[in-house]
Amino acid sequence: MSSDTTPEPDIELAEQLFSELDSATRDGRGIRRDSYGPGEDAAHEIVRNAGERLGLEIDRDAALNLYLTLPGKDRSLPAVFIGSHLDSVDQGGNFDGAAGVLAGLAVAAGFKNAGVQPERDITVMAIRCEEAHWFDGPYVGTNLAFGRLDPGYLDDLKRSDTGRTLADHMAECGGDVEALRRQEASLEPSKIAAYVELHIEQAPVLVEAELPIGLVTGIRGYRRYSSVRCTGVYGHSGALPRRSRADAVAASVHLIEELNREWVRLEEQEGRDLVFTVGQFSTDERYHGPSKVAGETSFSLDFRSIETQTLDHMMDVLEKTLRRTEHEYGVSFELGARSDSPPAVLSSKLRGAMKSLAKRDGIAAMEMASGAGHDAAVFAELGVPTAMIFVRNRQGSHNPDEEMEIADFREGVRLLASFIDAGEPALSGNLGREDQKEEFGQTA
Amino acid sequence: MSSDTTPEPDIELAEQLFSELDSATRDGRGIRRDSYGPGEDAAHEIVRNAGERLGLEIDRDAALNLYLTLPGKDRSLPAVFIGSHLDSVDQGGNFDGAAGVLAGLAVAAGFKNAGVQPERDITVMAIRCEEAHWFDGPYVGTNLAFGRLDPGYLDDLKRSDTGRTLADHMAECGGDVEALRRQEASLEPSKIAAYVELHIEQAPVLVEAELPIGLVTGIRGYRRYSSVRCTGVYGHSGALPRRSRADAVAASVHLIEELNREWVRLEEQEGRDLVFTVGQFSTDERYHGPSKVAGETSFSLDFRSIETQTLDHMMDVLEKTLRRTEHEYGVSFELGARSDSPPAVLSSKLRGAMKSLAKRDGIAAMEMASGAGHDAAVFAELGVPTAMIFVRNRQGSHNPDEEMEIADFREGVRLLASFIDAGEPALSGNLGREDQKEEFGQTA
Repeated sequence: MSSDTTPEPDIELAEQLFSELDSATRDGRGIRRDSYGPGEDAAHEIVRNAGERLGLEIDRDAALNLYLTLPGKDRSLPAVFIGSHLDSVDQGGNFDGAAGVLAGLAVAAGFKNAGVQPERDITVMAIRCEEAHWFDGPYVGTNLAFGRLDPGYLDDLKRSDTGRTLADHMAECGGDVEALRRQEASLEPSKIAAYVELHIEQAPVLVEAELPIGLVTGIRGYRRYSSVRCTGVYGHSGALPRRSRADAVAASVHLIEELNREWVRLEEQEGRDLVFTVGQFSTDERYHGPSKVAGETSFSLDFRSIETQTLDHMMDVLEKTLRRTEHEYGVSFELGARSDSPPAVLSSKLRGAMKSLAKRDGIAAMEMASGAGHDAAVFAELGVPTAMIFVRNRQGSHNPDEEMEIADFREGVRLLASFIDAGEPALSGNLGREDQKEEFGQTA
Repeated sequence: MSSDTTPEPDIELAEQLFSELDSATRDGRGIRRDSYGPGEDAAHEIVRNAGERLGLEIDRDAALNLYLTLPGKDRSLPAVFIGSHLDSVDQGGNFDGAAGVLAGLAVAAGFKNAGVQPERDITVMAIRCEEAHWFDGPYVGTNLAFGRLDPGYLDDLKRSDTGRTLADHMAECGGDVEALRRQEASLEPSKIAAYVELHIEQAPVLVEAELPIGLVTGIRGYRRYSSVRCTGVYGHSGALPRRSRADAVAASVHLIEELNREWVRLEEQEGRDLVFTVGQFSTDERYHGPSKVAGETSFSLDFRSIETQTLDHMMDVLEKTLRRTEHEYGVSFELGARSDSPPAVLSSKLRGAMKSLAKRDGIAAMEMASGAGHDAAVFAELGVPTAMIFVRNRQGSHNPDEEMEIADFREGVRLLASFIDAGEPALSGNLGREDQKEEFGQTA
């Protein structure tokens, strides 16, 4: 393996396809690639046509996920998947999702252009329906591909704009709803050697670090209470002394501030990974007033970490702080329903290989956690060795202003091409170890 | 002066009138005595009839405040006023306001029954429109009586339920709107020797202290920001690290918690009088979400104290904490408009006299601040020597469940009767001093 032999990825092709996607799916100021709707269909059509022009093998599963395969030398070996989704939120940007698919096409085109055949199949997977914006379900396209989405979702999930079911929208686009009801799987984890997803970063970590590339260590899991209630007693703001109050705002504020303090402590003193967010907080507008002690609040609590033990710890801290606050403030809390998503640990072998290759190729990269969810989480959960490459992006995502520079994208795609080109040593994790030995001057 | 000669107040009359008021103005579960509406009119009619039966002199001013006067021996002396309001909030209780008027009638009836003529005129004043519930203006009835309400209010204040103007409602009840437009005064501060208001307590201070009577030291003033805004930046709750956030909830929570801490410190370490309340707090429901860092909050801040310097201090603390929080959290605050009401200091002479009389008569009383506003604040501000007697009351006020026991009311009315009976020494403050000397065994 050597950087001299790595086929140069076709960034011009990717740029052309970004432009085609933009023309076909821009709706006013932002992008609209609605899941199982005309926008997503148009994107799949553009990608499929590009695959055909490149002479890739083309397949589509019952859920309309698209597979574009560059055949390898030994077709009996498990394939390497390069994937991401092609849908976008409404009024989204042009890069979220699409960048990963076009990166795969750019790499495949590079191999084609150079006349180089990879050791095993390289499959570019264009995934359906990742954005919960349209159907509020868990990684619908990917889970359908693995035959592991509860068929109930087909009729229960209603699209946020039309109110029509997932089954209805899918049938309209040509999907095989009956096969999905039988939970027929198109993918088998054991037949996938690795899943690699390139994605724009959705936070400004790389922007602030002034680095183009992130190597993702894991995808944060979450514990989320969407509707916590605090009940106190309404009263006259002027007349009620502090000791006679059961002030729901004061108590809720105290609880949240204490949780924020624990976050700071864990981060600064223990170097733990955590984000904690109260995204909603309201007194009851039917009863509240600037001259009334508030008798009720409702708010959300969202804890995310790549470390299960950190999430467990915060659940303990929440419980204890909540009981203490109830006692001190004379209020009562009801946490309500919790939704959980486990952290996804990505492959350290693959990441180690990528670190080595980035170093070799002069690509500036850092390790980082992904706060947002990605299809990669499903592959990782199923035991597929999984890696993610983040590309620096300004202005966040899920908005028309997301801003990835092609120069940064090129660095990510170069790393992806080197990884594919490296073959077996990169997949088995030997590359990282070799590199470490080199670093310590212990190899020949 | 001696307790033996004090005419026994007619508590039975008060009880009968409470019952009449209840029958005439109960509307479902609660009381409805709407300002310048049928409910308040009905209450005034009941009180006026009672005054006529007692043979009191009856007068009504342009704003329909009612004056029932028991003539004194020397009619050239400034009168002592015993007053309170007769309106109630919607779905209020039967005692808030009315108790003070009926207390005055019970005292006057006691003098009548005993054939005792007071040294000077005793005027029971039944005040209009105190509850901001109906017209959100400052002590409308009392300020109109003194000719000091800006005439603009007559057309600008709209009743909360009907949307019709104060002038319209007042004309309908028979008020002389044109005289009020000319700001004609019916009362002259220099012609009032003292204003005494008996009122149910609106907090559980007396309940918790297990005492029937409170002697009010002052009425808390306030500094209130009804609509503070905090602006941050919306973002992905999973992806955004702490240092990259401009979290409006976290910043607002921090600000409020710091202000609460300062309240505790002032109270516990410096013995200052303060109540601080955030009665409203909301993220923007159009944009917020449990998975989003909040980019905006709005909330209220209400500071009340009988000490101007404490209010000034909190304004300083607010300003400094706000700037520091903006810096630490990357957000910006806009405080918006502030409404102010100065603390009203009640007469220490009158209070001293009442303390002496309470002690003499075996009435258990404590000194305390009033958190809520009362008509007494206007008299005090105009330089009229003013006192307030609070009567223990369970369940707070402004709700159907307010609960004053007649035994406690009787103690308050007995104290009021003793005060009226004491005459000049009580008004001049000599009573309190004499009593103090007695306490220290220095009098003959």
